[in-house]
Amino acid sequence: MAQHEQFIRQCIALAISAAKKGNEPFGALLVHGGKVIMTAENTVTGDNDFTRHAELNLVVNSQRAFSSDMLQESILYTSTAPCILCTGAIWFAGISKIVYSVSYESFVKLVAPEYKYISCKEIFQRLETAAEIVGPILEKEGLGGFQFWK
Amino acid sequence: MAQHEQFIRQCIALAISAAKKGNEPFGALLVHGGKVIMTAENTVTGDNDFTRHAELNLVVNSQRAFSSDMLQESILYTSTAPCILCTGAIWFAGISKIVYSVSYESFVKLVAPEYKYISCKEIFQRLETAAEIVGPILEKEGLGGFQFWK
Repeated sequence: MAQHEQFIRQCIALAISAAKKGNEPFGALLVHGGKVIMTAENTVTGDNDFTRHAELNLVVNSQRAFSSDMLQESILYTSTAPCILCTGAIWFAGISKIVYSVSYESFVKLVAPEYKYISCKEIFQRLETAAEIVGPILEKEGLGGFQFWK
Repeated sequence: MAQHEQFIRQCIALAISAAKKGNEPFGALLVHGGKVIMTAENTVTGDNDFTRHAELNLVVNSQRAFSSDMLQESILYTSTAPCILCTGAIWFAGISKIVYSVSYESFVKLVAPEYKYISCKEIFQRLETAAEIVGPILEKEGLGGFQFWK
């Protein structure tokens, strides 16, 4: 759990960094063998591409850089539980271990309470992929990152 | 229906065009007021990005080019029903009218029968978005496009 907290705090720092660049406050990273091998921030505003969520950027860059075996062995950490688009991308990338700070439920409650969603856990269950999904971790700190959203 | 067939045939041609460039055989287009306003092919191989599905490319470029109102009024045509990643992107883009040739069920049966999936129709229903999803249309012709997959 202590190691989870260390990586989650790094994700929150990436989220705040994204926000300070005018992007949406989300950050993610990939850990293999206890080491961070890739980090990513949301770049929606900078890239003028509403799909460039932190997790999408992370898995695209990771899939370019590492083997399928490495991705399968890795853990994806993220400041907020992945949306349906990113969950699809994570699944396609063959990553099935996810640790998040803010739950999607808490995120939706904060920004758009009227929205419905499908959790990443349910999506992985429906796709019959044996996933390990852990969270929320340090959710109060994670939610604090949203104060930097411009 | 005749108009659906015309646009679906154009999607299948885009899918074959993608395959001939070494990409995966998928094509999509956006129609507004009866006219094609954007077309896209799968560029997964060309961009070395496993997320560059035809529909993802289509909605990213369309969201850059057109207003939210135009997107909401548009119909997305595609050679194969969108995967979960693309359905997420289409939903975020505010497009809720989808017409497809090959159903995702038929596609999975063809390429990876062991895979589970969640249909775009179910995803839109779960997100409580009043979507119009039509298909399969000319599915045999649509499946024919896969013979060009290298």
